[in-house]
Amino acid sequence: MTVYTAYKIWLISSSSKCNCSNTVSLNVGARPCHLFRLASTGLIPELGNLISHRRQPAMVMKLYGMDNFNVQRAILPLFEVEVDTEKELELVKVSLFMNDNLKPAYTAKQPFGLIPYFEDNDIAIFESRAIARYIAEKYDGQDGSLLGKTLKERAAIDQWVESEAHNFYPPVQPMIKEIYWARAMNRPMDEELIARCTAELCKVLDVYEAHLSSKQGMQFLTGDEFTFADVMHTPYLWQVKQLKAELLEPRPHVAAYAARITARPGFQKLLQLNWDAAQPLH
Amino acid sequence: MTVYTAYKIWLISSSSKCNCSNTVSLNVGARPCHLFRLASTGLIPELGNLISHRRQPAMVMKLYGMDNFNVQRAILPLFEVEVDTEKELELVKVSLFMNDNLKPAYTAKQPFGLIPYFEDNDIAIFESRAIARYIAEKYDGQDGSLLGKTLKERAAIDQWVESEAHNFYPPVQPMIKEIYWARAMNRPMDEELIARCTAELCKVLDVYEAHLSSKQGMQFLTGDEFTFADVMHTPYLWQVKQLKAELLEPRPHVAAYAARITARPGFQKLLQLNWDAAQPLH
Repeated sequence: MTVYTAYKIWLISSSSKCNCSNTVSLNVGARPCHLFRLASTGLIPELGNLISHRRQPAMVMKLYGMDNFNVQRAILPLFEVEVDTEKELELVKVSLFMNDNLKPAYTAKQPFGLIPYFEDNDIAIFESRAIARYIAEKYDGQDGSLLGKTLKERAAIDQWVESEAHNFYPPVQPMIKEIYWARAMNRPMDEELIARCTAELCKVLDVYEAHLSSKQGMQFLTGDEFTFADVMHTPYLWQVKQLKAELLEPRPHVAAYAARITARPGFQKLLQLNWDAAQPLH
Repeated sequence: MTVYTAYKIWLISSSSKCNCSNTVSLNVGARPCHLFRLASTGLIPELGNLISHRRQPAMVMKLYGMDNFNVQRAILPLFEVEVDTEKELELVKVSLFMNDNLKPAYTAKQPFGLIPYFEDNDIAIFESRAIARYIAEKYDGQDGSLLGKTLKERAAIDQWVESEAHNFYPPVQPMIKEIYWARAMNRPMDEELIARCTAELCKVLDVYEAHLSSKQGMQFLTGDEFTFADVMHTPYLWQVKQLKAELLEPRPHVAAYAARITARPGFQKLLQLNWDAAQPLH
Protein backbone atom coordinates (compact mmCIF):
# COMPACT_ATOMS: atom_id res chain seq x y z
CA MET A 1 0.00 0.00 0.00
CA THR A 2 1.50 3.31 -1.00
CA VAL A 3 1.39 6.11 1.51
CA TYR A 4 -1.19 8.65 0.48
CA THR A 5 -0.64 11.23 3.16
CA ALA A 6 -0.75 11.51 6.92
CA TYR A 7 -3.64 13.11 8.71
CA LYS A 8 -4.12 14.48 12.15
CA ILE A 9 -7.52 14.85 13.64
CA TRP A 10 -8.03 17.12 16.53
CA LEU A 11 -10.58 15.44 18.70
CA ILE A 12 -12.15 17.72 21.27
CA SER A 13 -13.13 15.08 23.75
CA SER A 14 -16.38 15.93 25.47
CA SER A 15 -15.36 14.09 28.60
CA SER A 16 -11.83 15.40 28.84
CA LYS A 17 -11.23 17.66 31.81
CA CYS A 18 -8.02 19.24 30.63
CA ASN A 19 -7.91 22.21 28.31
CA CYS A 20 -5.50 20.83 25.78
CA SER A 21 -6.83 19.73 22.42
CA ASN A 22 -6.07 16.04 22.21
CA THR A 23 -4.30 14.93 19.08
CA VAL A 24 -4.53 11.45 17.65
CA SER A 25 -2.05 10.70 14.92
CA LEU A 26 -3.36 8.57 12.11
CA ASN A 27 -1.12 5.87 10.73
CA VAL A 28 0.64 6.40 7.46
CA GLY A 29 -1.44 4.82 4.74
CA ALA A 30 -4.57 6.60 5.92
CA ARG A 31 -6.52 7.94 2.97
CA PRO A 32 -9.56 10.17 2.61
CA CYS A 33 -11.74 7.07 2.29
CA HIS A 34 -10.65 5.96 5.76
CA LEU A 35 -11.92 9.22 7.15
CA PHE A 36 -15.27 8.68 5.43
CA ARG A 37 -15.53 5.13 6.71
CA LEU A 38 -14.49 6.21 10.18
CA ALA A 39 -16.95 9.12 10.08
CA SER A 40 -19.74 6.90 8.77
CA THR A 41 -19.50 4.65 11.84
CA GLY A 42 -20.61 7.64 13.90
CA LEU A 43 -18.11 6.62 16.57
CA ILE A 44 -16.45 10.03 16.64
CA PRO A 45 -19.12 12.68 16.02
CA GLU A 46 -16.58 15.50 15.71
CA LEU A 47 -15.03 13.78 12.69
CA GLY A 48 -18.36 13.82 10.86
CA ASN A 49 -18.57 17.58 11.32
CA LEU A 50 -14.99 18.14 10.28
CA ILE A 51 -15.33 16.41 6.91
CA SER A 52 -19.05 16.73 6.20
CA HIS A 53 -18.43 19.33 3.48
CA ARG A 54 -16.61 16.65 1.49
CA ARG A 55 -19.90 14.85 0.91
CA GLN A 56 -20.87 17.51 -1.62
CA PRO A 57 -20.18 16.12 -5.10
CA ALA A 58 -17.86 18.18 -7.28
CA MET A 59 -19.64 17.06 -10.47
CA VAL A 60 -22.83 15.26 -11.37
CA MET A 61 -22.90 11.51 -11.74
CA LYS A 62 -23.54 10.00 -15.18
CA LEU A 63 -25.65 6.93 -15.87
CA TYR A 64 -25.52 5.30 -19.32
CA GLY A 65 -28.45 3.09 -20.21
CA MET A 66 -32.17 3.09 -20.88
CA ASP A 67 -35.41 2.26 -19.10
CA ASN A 68 -34.43 -1.27 -18.14
CA PHE A 69 -34.54 -3.43 -15.01
CA ASN A 70 -30.79 -3.97 -14.73
CA VAL A 71 -30.32 -0.22 -14.97
CA GLN A 72 -32.93 0.27 -12.24
CA ARG A 73 -31.09 -2.18 -9.99
CA ALA A 74 -27.84 -0.24 -10.39
CA ILE A 75 -29.27 3.12 -9.45
CA LEU A 76 -31.98 2.35 -6.89
CA PRO A 77 -29.69 2.96 -3.86
CA LEU A 78 -29.35 6.58 -5.03
CA PHE A 79 -33.13 6.97 -4.72
CA GLU A 80 -33.08 5.56 -1.19
CA VAL A 81 -30.93 8.42 0.13
CA GLU A 82 -31.57 12.14 0.10
CA VAL A 83 -29.83 13.00 -3.15
CA ASP A 84 -31.41 15.41 -5.61
CA THR A 85 -31.21 13.08 -8.60
CA GLU A 86 -32.60 15.73 -10.93
CA LYS A 87 -29.54 17.89 -10.28
CA GLU A 88 -26.91 15.33 -9.43
CA LEU A 89 -27.61 12.54 -11.92
CA GLU A 90 -27.22 12.94 -15.67
CA LEU A 91 -28.64 10.32 -18.05
CA VAL A 92 -26.99 9.24 -21.32
CA LYS A 93 -29.19 7.11 -23.56
CA VAL A 94 -27.78 3.77 -24.69
CA SER A 95 -30.63 2.00 -26.46
CA LEU A 96 -30.48 -1.77 -26.84
CA PHE A 97 -33.15 -1.47 -29.56
CA MET A 98 -30.87 0.86 -31.58
CA ASN A 99 -27.73 -1.24 -30.84
CA ASP A 100 -26.09 1.79 -29.18
CA ASN A 101 -24.48 -0.70 -26.81
CA LEU A 102 -22.41 -2.15 -29.67
CA LYS A 103 -21.04 1.19 -30.89
CA PRO A 104 -17.29 1.69 -30.37
CA ALA A 105 -17.95 4.89 -28.37
CA TYR A 106 -19.77 2.71 -25.85
CA THR A 107 -17.74 -0.52 -25.92
CA ALA A 108 -14.66 1.59 -25.19
CA LYS A 109 -16.32 2.20 -21.82
CA GLN A 110 -18.22 -1.09 -21.35
CA PRO A 111 -16.26 -3.79 -23.22
CA PHE A 112 -19.00 -6.42 -22.91
CA GLY A 113 -21.49 -4.07 -24.63
CA LEU A 114 -23.98 -4.28 -21.76
CA ILE A 115 -25.92 -1.61 -19.88
CA PRO A 116 -25.66 0.14 -17.48
CA TYR A 117 -22.37 2.00 -17.24
CA PHE A 118 -21.76 4.65 -14.59
CA GLU A 119 -19.34 7.54 -13.95
CA ASP A 120 -18.81 9.60 -10.81
CA ASN A 121 -15.96 12.05 -11.36
CA ASP A 122 -12.87 9.89 -11.88
CA ILE A 123 -14.64 6.65 -10.94
CA ALA A 124 -16.06 4.55 -13.79
CA ILE A 125 -17.95 1.28 -13.20
CA PHE A 126 -19.82 -1.32 -15.20
CA GLU A 127 -22.00 -4.21 -13.92
CA SER A 128 -25.23 -3.10 -12.27
CA ARG A 129 -24.61 -4.78 -8.91
CA ALA A 130 -21.14 -3.22 -8.63
CA ILE A 131 -22.58 0.22 -9.40
CA ALA A 132 -25.30 -0.30 -6.79
CA ARG A 133 -22.78 -1.38 -4.16
CA TYR A 134 -20.58 1.63 -4.93
CA ILE A 135 -23.52 4.01 -4.44
CA ALA A 136 -24.59 2.22 -1.26
CA GLU A 137 -21.03 2.49 0.12
CA LYS A 138 -20.66 6.12 -0.92
CA TYR A 139 -23.77 7.14 1.01
CA ASP A 140 -23.35 4.56 3.78
CA GLY A 141 -24.39 6.07 7.09
CA GLN A 142 -26.04 9.13 5.58
CA ASP A 143 -29.60 7.80 5.93
CA GLY A 144 -28.88 4.53 7.67
CA SER A 145 -26.84 1.73 6.17
CA LEU A 146 -28.13 -0.46 3.36
CA LEU A 147 -25.09 -2.74 3.70
CA GLY A 148 -25.37 -3.47 7.42
CA LYS A 149 -23.32 -2.37 10.39
CA THR A 150 -21.98 -5.57 11.92
CA LEU A 151 -20.23 -8.48 10.26
CA LYS A 152 -23.27 -10.63 11.07
CA GLU A 153 -25.73 -8.16 9.53
CA ARG A 154 -23.53 -7.77 6.45
CA ALA A 155 -23.24 -11.54 6.04
CA ALA A 156 -27.03 -11.97 6.14
CA ILE A 157 -27.51 -9.15 3.63
CA ASP A 158 -24.84 -10.49 1.28
CA GLN A 159 -26.35 -13.98 1.44
CA TRP A 160 -29.64 -12.64 0.01
CA VAL A 161 -27.81 -10.33 -2.40
CA GLU A 162 -26.15 -13.41 -3.87
CA SER A 163 -29.39 -15.37 -3.72
CA GLU A 164 -30.92 -12.74 -6.00
CA ALA A 165 -28.03 -13.05 -8.45
CA HIS A 166 -27.82 -16.85 -8.50
CA ASN A 167 -31.28 -18.19 -7.56
CA PHE A 168 -33.90 -15.54 -8.38
CA TYR A 169 -32.37 -13.78 -11.40
CA PRO A 170 -31.51 -16.84 -13.58
CA PRO A 171 -35.15 -17.87 -14.10
CA VAL A 172 -36.85 -14.46 -13.78
CA GLN A 173 -34.64 -12.51 -16.19
CA PRO A 174 -35.18 -14.62 -19.34
CA MET A 175 -38.89 -14.93 -18.52
CA ILE A 176 -39.46 -11.17 -18.26
CA LYS A 177 -37.15 -10.45 -21.20
CA GLU A 178 -39.09 -12.90 -23.41
CA ILE A 179 -42.42 -11.29 -22.50
CA TYR A 180 -41.09 -7.81 -23.37
CA TRP A 181 -39.31 -8.77 -26.59
CA ALA A 182 -42.29 -10.78 -27.87
CA ARG A 183 -44.43 -7.68 -27.34
CA ALA A 184 -41.87 -5.31 -28.85
CA MET A 185 -41.39 -7.52 -31.93
CA ASN A 186 -45.11 -8.31 -32.14
CA ARG A 187 -44.42 -12.06 -32.26
CA PRO A 188 -45.77 -15.02 -30.25
CA MET A 189 -44.00 -15.80 -26.98
CA ASP A 190 -41.71 -18.82 -26.68
CA GLU A 191 -44.14 -20.68 -24.42
CA GLU A 192 -41.69 -23.49 -23.72
CA LEU A 193 -39.12 -21.00 -22.39
CA ILE A 194 -41.77 -19.26 -20.28
CA ALA A 195 -42.95 -22.60 -18.83
CA ARG A 196 -39.42 -23.72 -18.00
CA CYS A 197 -38.53 -20.42 -16.31
CA THR A 198 -41.86 -20.32 -14.46
CA ALA A 199 -41.36 -23.80 -13.02
CA GLU A 200 -37.85 -22.91 -11.86
CA LEU A 201 -38.94 -19.55 -10.47
CA CYS A 202 -41.79 -21.17 -8.50
CA LYS A 203 -39.30 -23.38 -6.66
CA VAL A 204 -37.23 -20.31 -5.80
CA LEU A 205 -40.28 -18.33 -4.67
CA ASP A 206 -41.28 -21.25 -2.42
CA VAL A 207 -37.96 -20.85 -0.58
CA TYR A 208 -38.57 -17.10 -0.24
CA GLU A 209 -42.12 -17.76 1.04
CA ALA A 210 -40.79 -20.14 3.70
CA HIS A 211 -38.07 -17.68 4.67
CA LEU A 212 -40.34 -14.62 4.87
CA SER A 213 -42.87 -16.52 6.98
CA SER A 214 -40.23 -18.04 9.27
CA LYS A 215 -40.45 -15.19 11.79
CA GLN A 216 -43.47 -13.24 12.99
CA GLY A 217 -43.79 -9.87 11.28
CA MET A 218 -40.66 -10.16 9.13
CA GLN A 219 -40.83 -7.13 6.84
CA PHE A 220 -37.74 -7.59 4.70
CA LEU A 221 -35.30 -10.33 3.72
CA THR A 222 -33.03 -9.88 6.72
CA GLY A 223 -35.56 -8.66 9.28
CA ASP A 224 -37.18 -5.32 10.02
CA GLU A 225 -34.88 -3.09 8.01
CA PHE A 226 -34.83 -2.48 4.27
CA THR A 227 -31.34 -3.35 3.03
CA PHE A 228 -29.20 -3.79 -0.05
CA ALA A 229 -30.62 -7.33 -0.37
CA ASP A 230 -34.11 -5.88 -0.84
CA VAL A 231 -32.76 -3.28 -3.30
CA MET A 232 -31.43 -6.10 -5.46
CA HIS A 233 -34.82 -7.86 -5.63
CA THR A 234 -37.01 -4.80 -6.27
CA PRO A 235 -36.93 -4.24 -10.08
CA TYR A 236 -37.63 -7.82 -11.16
CA LEU A 237 -40.11 -8.49 -8.35
CA TRP A 238 -41.94 -5.41 -9.63
CA GLN A 239 -42.08 -7.01 -13.07
CA VAL A 240 -43.36 -10.31 -11.65
CA LYS A 241 -46.04 -8.34 -9.79
CA GLN A 242 -47.03 -6.53 -13.00
CA LEU A 243 -46.80 -9.40 -15.49
CA LYS A 244 -47.04 -12.69 -13.59
CA ALA A 245 -49.08 -11.84 -10.47
CA GLU A 246 -50.47 -15.39 -10.47
CA LEU A 247 -47.08 -16.58 -9.21
CA LEU A 248 -47.38 -14.36 -6.13
CA GLU A 249 -51.01 -15.09 -5.21
CA PRO A 250 -50.37 -18.57 -3.72
CA ARG A 251 -47.40 -17.13 -1.79
CA PRO A 252 -48.89 -14.45 0.50
CA HIS A 253 -45.66 -13.51 2.28
CA VAL A 254 -43.79 -12.99 -0.99
CA ALA A 255 -46.79 -11.06 -2.35
CA ALA A 256 -46.86 -8.77 0.70
CA TYR A 257 -43.08 -8.36 0.52
CA ALA A 258 -43.21 -7.49 -3.19
CA ALA A 259 -45.95 -4.92 -2.51
CA ARG A 260 -43.94 -3.46 0.37
CA ILE A 261 -40.61 -2.98 -1.41
CA THR A 262 -42.06 -1.74 -4.69
CA ALA A 263 -44.27 0.83 -2.92
CA ARG A 264 -41.30 2.62 -1.37
CA PRO A 265 -40.99 6.28 -2.42
CA GLY A 266 -37.47 5.74 -3.77
CA PHE A 267 -38.50 3.04 -6.23
CA GLN A 268 -41.67 4.90 -7.21
CA LYS A 269 -39.55 7.97 -7.98
CA LEU A 270 -37.09 5.83 -9.93
CA LEU A 271 -39.96 4.57 -12.12
CA GLN A 272 -40.56 8.20 -13.16
CA LEU A 273 -36.96 8.70 -14.35
CA ASN A 274 -37.30 10.49 -17.68
CA TRP A 275 -35.12 8.65 -20.19
CA ASP A 276 -36.71 10.61 -23.06
CA ALA A 277 -34.82 13.65 -21.82
CA ALA A 278 -31.50 11.76 -21.67
CA GLN A 279 -28.48 12.98 -23.61
CA PRO A 280 -27.56 11.06 -26.75
CA LEU A 281 -24.41 8.91 -26.73
CA HIS A 282 -21.40 10.58 -28.35
CA MET B 1 -30.91 0.34 15.25
CA THR B 2 -31.02 -1.01 18.79
CA VAL B 3 -28.43 0.17 21.24
CA TYR B 4 -25.93 -2.55 21.89
CA THR B 5 -23.80 -0.91 24.48
CA ALA B 6 -21.68 2.16 24.88
CA TYR B 7 -17.92 1.94 24.75
CA LYS B 8 -15.19 4.18 25.89
CA ILE B 9 -11.76 3.96 24.43
CA TRP B 10 -8.89 5.39 26.31
CA LEU B 11 -6.55 6.75 23.72
CA ILE B 12 -3.09 7.42 24.97
CA SER B 13 -2.10 9.97 22.42
CA SER B 14 1.56 9.84 21.56
CA SER B 15 1.63 13.52 20.71
CA SER B 16 -0.31 14.75 23.70
CA LYS B 17 1.76 16.75 26.12
CA CYS B 18 -0.53 16.50 29.12
CA ASN B 19 -0.62 13.54 31.45
CA CYS B 20 -4.33 12.91 31.44
CA SER B 21 -5.64 9.86 29.59
CA ASN B 22 -7.83 11.23 26.85
CA THR B 23 -11.29 9.75 26.65
CA VAL B 24 -13.36 9.65 23.50
CA SER B 25 -16.97 8.61 24.02
CA LEU B 26 -18.41 6.42 21.33
CA ASN B 27 -21.94 7.09 20.14
CA VAL B 28 -24.75 4.85 21.31
CA GLY B 29 -25.30 2.20 18.68
CA ALA B 30 -21.63 1.33 18.56
CA ARG B 31 -21.21 -2.43 18.40
CA PRO B 32 -18.18 -4.71 18.66
CA CYS B 33 -18.02 -4.85 14.86
CA HIS B 34 -17.49 -1.09 14.76
CA LEU B 35 -14.44 -1.52 16.92
CA PHE B 36 -13.11 -4.18 14.56
CA ARG B 37 -13.72 -2.01 11.52
CA LEU B 38 -12.22 0.98 13.25
CA ALA B 39 -9.24 -1.09 14.37
CA SER B 40 -8.81 -2.59 10.90
CA THR B 41 -8.33 0.86 9.36
CA GLY B 42 -5.17 1.13 11.43
CA LEU B 43 -6.03 4.76 12.14
CA ILE B 44 -5.79 4.35 15.89
CA PRO B 45 -3.02 1.85 16.63
CA GLU B 46 -3.88 1.67 20.34
CA LEU B 47 -7.32 0.33 19.51
CA GLY B 48 -5.85 -2.59 17.62
CA ASN B 49 -3.82 -3.54 20.68
CA LEU B 50 -6.77 -3.15 23.03
CA ILE B 51 -9.05 -5.52 21.14
CA SER B 52 -6.57 -7.75 19.38
CA HIS B 53 -7.37 -10.66 21.68
CA ARG B 54 -10.92 -10.66 20.26
CA ARG B 55 -9.56 -11.81 16.92
CA GLN B 56 -9.06 -15.27 18.41
CA PRO B 57 -12.05 -17.39 17.37
CA ALA B 58 -14.04 -18.92 20.20
CA MET B 59 -14.92 -21.93 18.03
CA VAL B 60 -13.78 -23.37 14.75
CA MET B 61 -15.51 -22.43 11.51
CA LYS B 62 -17.51 -25.13 9.71
CA LEU B 63 -17.65 -25.59 5.95
CA TYR B 64 -20.30 -27.90 4.46
CA GLY B 65 -19.58 -29.16 0.96
CA MET B 66 -17.23 -31.31 -1.07
CA ASP B 67 -14.26 -30.93 -3.40
CA ASN B 68 -15.99 -28.53 -5.79
CA PHE B 69 -15.14 -25.22 -7.49
CA ASN B 70 -17.95 -23.21 -5.91
CA VAL B 71 -16.82 -24.46 -2.51
CA GLN B 72 -13.23 -23.44 -3.37
CA ARG B 73 -14.41 -19.94 -4.30
CA ALA B 74 -16.16 -19.54 -0.94
CA ILE B 75 -13.19 -20.48 1.17
CA LEU B 76 -10.18 -19.23 -0.78
CA PRO B 77 -9.97 -15.89 1.14
CA LEU B 78 -9.30 -17.92 4.30
CA PHE B 79 -6.20 -19.41 2.62
CA GLU B 80 -4.95 -15.94 1.66
CA VAL B 81 -4.57 -14.87 5.31
CA GLU B 82 -2.55 -16.39 8.09
CA VAL B 83 -5.21 -18.66 9.56
CA ASP B 84 -4.36 -22.20 10.61
CA THR B 85 -7.09 -23.87 8.58
CA GLU B 86 -6.19 -27.28 9.94
CA LYS B 87 -7.15 -26.15 13.43
CA GLU B 88 -9.73 -23.45 12.74
CA LEU B 89 -11.70 -24.94 9.86
CA GLU B 90 -13.83 -28.07 10.18
CA LEU B 91 -15.19 -29.81 7.08
CA VAL B 92 -18.60 -31.51 6.85
CA LYS B 93 -19.11 -33.63 3.75
CA VAL B 94 -22.18 -32.87 1.64
CA SER B 95 -21.80 -35.01 -1.48
CA LEU B 96 -23.72 -34.02 -4.59
CA PHE B 97 -23.11 -37.55 -5.92
CA MET B 98 -24.87 -39.03 -2.87
CA ASN B 99 -27.65 -36.38 -2.91
CA ASP B 100 -26.66 -35.29 0.62
CA ASN B 101 -27.62 -31.77 -0.47
CA LEU B 102 -31.28 -32.82 -0.75
CA LYS B 103 -31.50 -34.38 2.73
CA PRO B 104 -33.74 -32.50 5.18
CA ALA B 105 -30.84 -32.14 7.64
CA TYR B 106 -29.08 -30.08 4.97
CA THR B 107 -31.98 -28.20 3.33
CA ALA B 108 -32.94 -26.97 6.80
CA LYS B 109 -29.64 -25.07 6.61
CA GLN B 110 -29.43 -24.39 2.86
CA PRO B 111 -33.00 -24.23 1.53
CA PHE B 112 -31.96 -24.27 -2.15
CA GLY B 113 -30.08 -27.54 -1.60
CA LEU B 114 -26.81 -26.14 -2.93
CA ILE B 115 -23.25 -26.25 -1.63
CA PRO B 116 -21.40 -24.70 0.14
CA TYR B 117 -22.89 -23.69 3.46
CA PHE B 118 -20.78 -22.09 6.19
CA GLU B 119 -20.96 -21.47 9.94
CA ASP B 120 -18.79 -19.27 12.15
CA ASN B 121 -20.10 -19.34 15.72
CA ASP B 122 -23.57 -17.75 15.51
CA ILE B 123 -23.15 -16.64 11.89
CA ALA B 124 -24.53 -18.95 9.18
CA ILE B 125 -24.25 -18.18 5.47
CA PHE B 126 -25.06 -19.82 2.15
CA GLU B 127 -24.02 -18.70 -1.36
CA SER B 128 -20.30 -19.07 -2.07
CA ARG B 129 -19.68 -15.41 -2.95
CA ALA B 130 -21.39 -14.21 0.24
CA ILE B 131 -19.28 -16.61 2.32
CA ALA B 132 -16.12 -15.40 0.57
CA ARG B 133 -17.01 -11.75 1.18
CA TYR B 134 -17.73 -12.46 4.84
CA ILE B 135 -14.32 -14.08 5.29
CA ALA B 136 -12.59 -11.26 3.41
CA GLU B 137 -14.34 -8.68 5.61
CA LYS B 138 -13.62 -10.61 8.80
CA TYR B 139 -9.89 -10.62 8.12
CA ASP B 140 -9.79 -7.26 6.33
CA GLY B 141 -6.63 -5.43 7.26
CA GLN B 142 -4.93 -8.43 8.86
CA ASP B 143 -2.72 -9.21 5.86
CA GLY B 144 -3.70 -6.36 3.57
CA SER B 145 -7.17 -5.82 2.22
CA LEU B 146 -8.68 -8.01 -0.48
CA LEU B 147 -11.67 -5.68 -0.76
CA GLY B 148 -9.82 -2.41 -1.30
CA LYS B 149 -9.25 0.60 0.89
CA THR B 150 -10.77 3.52 -0.97
CA LEU B 151 -14.19 3.84 -2.59
CA LYS B 152 -12.43 3.92 -5.97
CA GLU B 153 -10.41 0.76 -5.30
CA ARG B 154 -13.50 -1.02 -3.98
CA ALA B 155 -15.54 -0.01 -7.04
CA ALA B 156 -12.90 -1.39 -9.42
CA ILE B 157 -12.70 -4.64 -7.45
CA ASP B 158 -16.48 -5.04 -7.28
CA GLN B 159 -16.78 -4.41 -11.01
CA TRP B 160 -14.59 -7.44 -11.73
CA VAL B 161 -16.21 -9.47 -8.96
CA GLU B 162 -19.53 -8.98 -10.73
CA SER B 163 -17.93 -9.58 -14.11
CA GLU B 164 -16.92 -13.02 -12.86
CA ALA B 165 -20.47 -13.77 -11.72
CA HIS B 166 -22.26 -12.46 -14.81
CA ASN B 167 -19.81 -12.71 -17.73
CA PHE B 168 -17.22 -15.38 -16.93
CA TYR B 169 -19.21 -17.85 -14.82
CA PRO B 170 -22.31 -18.31 -17.06
CA PRO B 171 -20.37 -19.97 -19.92
CA VAL B 172 -17.50 -21.55 -17.92
CA GLN B 173 -19.58 -23.27 -15.25
CA PRO B 174 -21.79 -25.46 -17.51
CA MET B 175 -18.77 -26.25 -19.70
CA ILE B 176 -16.61 -27.51 -16.83
CA LYS B 177 -19.57 -29.24 -15.17
CA GLU B 178 -20.38 -31.13 -18.38
CA ILE B 179 -16.78 -32.30 -18.76
CA TYR B 180 -16.73 -33.61 -15.17
CA TRP B 181 -20.17 -35.25 -15.21
CA ALA B 182 -19.55 -36.94 -18.55
CA ARG B 183 -16.37 -38.43 -17.08
CA ALA B 184 -18.04 -39.38 -13.80
CA MET B 185 -20.99 -41.05 -15.56
CA ASN B 186 -18.73 -42.54 -18.24
CA ARG B 187 -20.90 -41.12 -21.02
CA PRO B 188 -20.10 -39.02 -24.12
CA MET B 189 -19.97 -35.26 -23.65
CA ASP B 190 -22.76 -33.04 -24.94
CA GLU B 191 -20.58 -31.57 -27.69
CA GLU B 192 -23.19 -29.00 -28.70
CA LEU B 193 -23.28 -27.60 -25.16
CA ILE B 194 -19.48 -27.54 -25.00
CA ALA B 195 -19.26 -25.73 -28.36
CA ARG B 196 -21.86 -23.13 -27.37
CA CYS B 197 -20.18 -22.43 -24.01
CA THR B 198 -16.73 -22.34 -25.59
CA ALA B 199 -17.81 -19.76 -28.18
CA GLU B 200 -19.35 -17.57 -25.49
CA LEU B 201 -16.38 -17.99 -23.16
CA CYS B 202 -13.94 -17.01 -25.92
CA LYS B 203 -15.70 -13.66 -26.34
CA VAL B 204 -15.44 -13.06 -22.60
CA LEU B 205 -11.77 -14.06 -22.51
CA ASP B 206 -11.08 -11.63 -25.37
CA VAL B 207 -12.34 -8.80 -23.15
CA TYR B 208 -10.12 -10.02 -20.31
CA GLU B 209 -7.15 -10.23 -22.68
CA ALA B 210 -7.69 -6.64 -23.82
CA HIS B 211 -8.09 -5.48 -20.23
CA LEU B 212 -5.04 -7.29 -18.86
CA SER B 213 -2.87 -5.95 -21.70
CA SER B 214 -4.22 -2.40 -21.42
CA LYS B 215 -1.49 -1.31 -19.01
CA GLN B 216 2.16 -2.22 -18.90
CA GLY B 217 2.92 -4.93 -16.36
CA MET B 218 -0.61 -5.30 -15.04
CA GLN B 219 -0.43 -8.29 -12.70
CA PHE B 220 -4.00 -8.64 -11.56
CA LEU B 221 -7.48 -7.51 -12.62
CA THR B 222 -7.34 -4.17 -10.86
CA GLY B 223 -3.60 -3.48 -11.02
CA ASP B 224 -0.61 -4.65 -9.03
CA GLU B 225 -2.40 -6.10 -6.03
CA PHE B 226 -4.17 -9.44 -5.72
CA THR B 227 -7.75 -8.70 -4.65
CA PHE B 228 -11.15 -10.25 -4.06
CA ALA B 229 -11.81 -9.94 -7.82
CA ASP B 230 -8.89 -12.31 -8.49
CA VAL B 231 -10.08 -14.67 -5.73
CA MET B 232 -13.42 -14.99 -7.51
CA HIS B 233 -11.78 -16.00 -10.82
CA THR B 234 -9.24 -18.48 -9.45
CA PRO B 235 -11.10 -21.83 -9.15
CA TYR B 236 -12.71 -21.85 -12.61
CA LEU B 237 -9.69 -20.34 -14.34
CA TRP B 238 -7.71 -23.20 -12.82
CA GLN B 239 -10.14 -25.63 -14.43
CA VAL B 240 -9.84 -23.90 -17.81
CA LYS B 241 -6.05 -24.11 -17.46
CA GLN B 242 -6.29 -27.85 -16.68
CA LEU B 243 -9.02 -28.90 -19.11
CA LYS B 244 -9.23 -26.32 -21.91
CA ALA B 245 -5.72 -24.85 -22.11
CA GLU B 246 -6.21 -24.29 -25.84
CA LEU B 247 -8.51 -21.37 -24.93
CA LEU B 248 -5.69 -19.65 -23.06
CA GLU B 249 -2.87 -20.18 -25.58
CA PRO B 250 -4.02 -17.50 -28.06
CA ARG B 251 -4.53 -15.07 -25.13
CA PRO B 252 -1.08 -14.67 -23.56
CA HIS B 253 -2.07 -12.09 -20.93
CA VAL B 254 -4.96 -14.22 -19.68
CA ALA B 255 -2.69 -17.29 -19.74
CA ALA B 256 -0.04 -15.51 -17.66
CA TYR B 257 -2.70 -14.18 -15.31
CA ALA B 258 -4.23 -17.65 -14.86
CA ALA B 259 -0.78 -19.09 -14.13
CA ARG B 260 -0.06 -16.28 -11.65
CA ILE B 261 -3.24 -16.53 -9.57
CA THR B 262 -3.41 -20.31 -9.50
CA ALA B 263 0.25 -20.61 -8.40
CA ARG B 264 -0.33 -18.63 -5.22
CA PRO B 265 0.44 -20.59 -2.04
CA GLY B 266 -3.08 -20.05 -0.69
CA PHE B 267 -4.79 -21.68 -3.66
CA GLN B 268 -2.21 -24.46 -3.84
CA LYS B 269 -2.86 -25.21 -0.16
CA LEU B 270 -6.61 -25.11 -0.77
CA LEU B 271 -6.23 -27.75 -3.49
CA GLN B 272 -4.81 -30.08 -0.81
CA LEU B 273 -7.86 -29.72 1.46
CA ASN B 274 -8.63 -33.25 2.60
CA TRP B 275 -12.33 -33.82 2.06
CA ASP B 276 -11.87 -37.56 2.70
CA ALA B 277 -11.30 -36.71 6.34
CA ALA B 278 -14.44 -34.55 6.53
CA GLN B 279 -17.15 -35.32 9.07
CA PRO B 280 -20.33 -36.91 7.76
CA LEU B 281 -23.54 -34.87 7.66
CA HIS B 282 -25.92 -35.49 10.57
